[in-house]
Amino acid sequence: MSLRLPIGFRAAGVYSGVKRSAKLDLSLVVSDRPCVAAGVYTKNLVCAAPVTLDRERTPGTSIRVVAINSGVANACTGDQGDIDARQMAAWAAESCGANPEQALVMSTGVIGTMLPMEKIRAGIEAASKVLSDDGTSLENAARGIMTTDTVPKIRGREVTIGGKLTRVTGIAKGAAMIGPNMGTMLSLIMTDAELRVEDAQAALVDAVDESFHCISVDGHMSTNDTVILLANGAVGAEESGKPGAPLSGKGLEDFRTTLFEVCEDLAQSIPADGEGATHLVTVEVHGCRSRPDALRIGKTIADSPLVKTAIAGADPNWGRIVSAAGYAGVKFDPTKVTLYLNGLLLYERGSPVDFDADAVSKSIAAERDTSVVLILEEGKSCARFWTTDLTAEYVRLNADYRT
Amino acid sequence: MSLRLPIGFRAAGVYSGVKRSAKLDLSLVVSDRPCVAAGVYTKNLVCAAPVTLDRERTPGTSIRVVAINSGVANACTGDQGDIDARQMAAWAAESCGANPEQALVMSTGVIGTMLPMEKIRAGIEAASKVLSDDGTSLENAARGIMTTDTVPKIRGREVTIGGKLTRVTGIAKGAAMIGPNMGTMLSLIMTDAELRVEDAQAALVDAVDESFHCISVDGHMSTNDTVILLANGAVGAEESGKPGAPLSGKGLEDFRTTLFEVCEDLAQSIPADGEGATHLVTVEVHGCRSRPDALRIGKTIADSPLVKTAIAGADPNWGRIVSAAGYAGVKFDPTKVTLYLNGLLLYERGSPVDFDADAVSKSIAAERDTSVVLILEEGKSCARFWTTDLTAEYVRLNADYRT
Repeated sequence: MSLRLPIGFRAAGVYSGVKRSAKLDLSLVVSDRPCVAAGVYTKNLVCAAPVTLDRERTPGTSIRVVAINSGVANACTGDQGDIDARQMAAWAAESCGANPEQALVMSTGVIGTMLPMEKIRAGIEAASKVLSDDGTSLENAARGIMTTDTVPKIRGREVTIGGKLTRVTGIAKGAAMIGPNMGTMLSLIMTDAELRVEDAQAALVDAVDESFHCISVDGHMSTNDTVILLANGAVGAEESGKPGAPLSGKGLEDFRTTLFEVCEDLAQSIPADGEGATHLVTVEVHGCRSRPDALRIGKTIADSPLVKTAIAGADPNWGRIVSAAGYAGVKFDPTKVTLYLNGLLLYERGSPVDFDADAVSKSIAAERDTSVVLILEEGKSCARFWTTDLTAEYVRLNADYRT
Repeated sequence: MSLRLPIGFRAAGVYSGVKRSAKLDLSLVVSDRPCVAAGVYTKNLVCAAPVTLDRERTPGTSIRVVAINSGVANACTGDQGDIDARQMAAWAAESCGANPEQALVMSTGVIGTMLPMEKIRAGIEAASKVLSDDGTSLENAARGIMTTDTVPKIRGREVTIGGKLTRVTGIAKGAAMIGPNMGTMLSLIMTDAELRVEDAQAALVDAVDESFHCISVDGHMSTNDTVILLANGAVGAEESGKPGAPLSGKGLEDFRTTLFEVCEDLAQSIPADGEGATHLVTVEVHGCRSRPDALRIGKTIADSPLVKTAIAGADPNWGRIVSAAGYAGVKFDPTKVTLYLNGLLLYERGSPVDFDADAVSKSIAAERDTSVVLILEEGKSCARFWTTDLTAEYVRLNADYRT
């Protein structure tokens, strides 16, 4: 089954000239009716102009259109950046006959450069003329937001919720938190489910917390990170011709589960496409006193360049993993730590195990997926974190001169 | 002036066979009289057996000898590791006619491997026979603690304190926090000043806080990090034949200043010799509400792989620096941030400055030292942090298979 847009959504991706290379760089997504819109944004104090604008407009109940450009991030651009983001939103709204405040915008790319506004204007106009609900247009929209990504990232589910076929379809971009010329993780998730705005926001916050917040390529939090959920309620409206009843009870629970699955798929697709990466690493931490404790240990392991280089080199250097856990800032008894790498026991309750280093090394080298499982004995909370290895190729990609 | 040991100290470095390659791997430092001893250790919960032992014995007033091996870290070695560290200390004490509890030990190298005790015993015995106060022995002791270091690290000062010539001489090792086979930052600082034990400990804590705690190669805190200060009071004793009066007032202040300078020199020598590094990067953060705020921002910038790869590539990508500051977890007004790179203004009070990118790039490429100065307008506190760039060579060094 190839992925499709939810009912009532159309999309397009075009080349506007913001990027130097002739690649798609401007995407437009339009809903034929107003959407409930939820947003989760970067926690970076230094945030981009489009983030500031979208924060004002979400949670909201009347969003019709989202315009996204790649190539220039419109971050660290002062007051002019805010004016430009607002203008970009106004053009997007105009292109589909909406009011200016019914639009959201996202940008990703180089920091500190002003948006080339004439190109943005022409790009939005061009995109608005080729909007379609077919699979090619969805893929073009996913390509239009790519920076150093090597593949477009589209994930979705088609499920029956409350007896009605409902779609949740998302696109995302991100390969490093900030790439060589570029930046950021962006995602736009669309659904034709009918949701109350407070339920949409809560569902998105919870889903992002266990998905996009559990990935790391290089530990660098961008100025532009944004995840937007648009819910246009087209499913409910299809039958009655009028807006249906918002999901609640089991229906809402089913939607939340589906949204989480889509977010998890999209989130994993980012480290899976990590710059220069040769391994997708899943770090599981069990037996913690709280989930924040488990996440903190998982993130510390996932961000350690020494852990990441060891995996790149197929080196079962478990000391780097255990010692990273030790400086995560979480209290635990180091004599009760157990570690598995790719399912093989390396360290048991604080003591090294006599293991076949060659076998472990070969198992790391043979698979793209690497599993790190760290078990404490402090409590029952756990967390999962995804990251990449760190290769010489990553450094080459990120050390290239900016322009 | 070539550096010399303080009065009453002798040193040696020998090859004991712990390392596979025929390089010096065991160092012994002996004082002819008991020393006041202060120690600062890793904050990693997972700490090595020698750290546990030294923590018990410092601050102390009767230390005579320190034995240090490289090649094996004696970390994550369970109860047997503790027994081995204690045995190693006992042999060191025996070699110079001291009591077992008058010895300290340090280890650096691979984690999770047991110390080869027969080699350690023979090494200590061999070293004890070639102890000397000459410069070659000091250099050998500095070489005996090296792992992936490319140069021995010896720094010191000869100053007049309270009218008496006083020496502060230190050795250190460290190139990555944990190298390919190895680990850790170690430093041993010796002085012939006469100090009260509480003054020695306070002076060391303060000096380390502004030196060794302000460096980072890869942000990975080791299981073995140790800085020890030994003060044998030989200067005071030389004239009277009896122990002199401990330093106080201006004399103590002068000593503290000298100790800080030596710690700063030793600390800088570590990132200066960072694995695969082509730049020593000094990050200064000004205008913060508190020193911990400034340190936190400095460390976040210094640990960002994107900042480090940009400097390796001579890329004046200031957005990476400003955005790293933004996720440090310190509150500040992002519209009042100013940034200089190698003395050139790139970003002023929240807005990009029109600068000559080629000139900045050339200045980064031309010099081994890179200066990053970030200025906030929140308060008057500041901090300095030293780190390296991140090169493909670092990854190659650290991705090599462990054995």
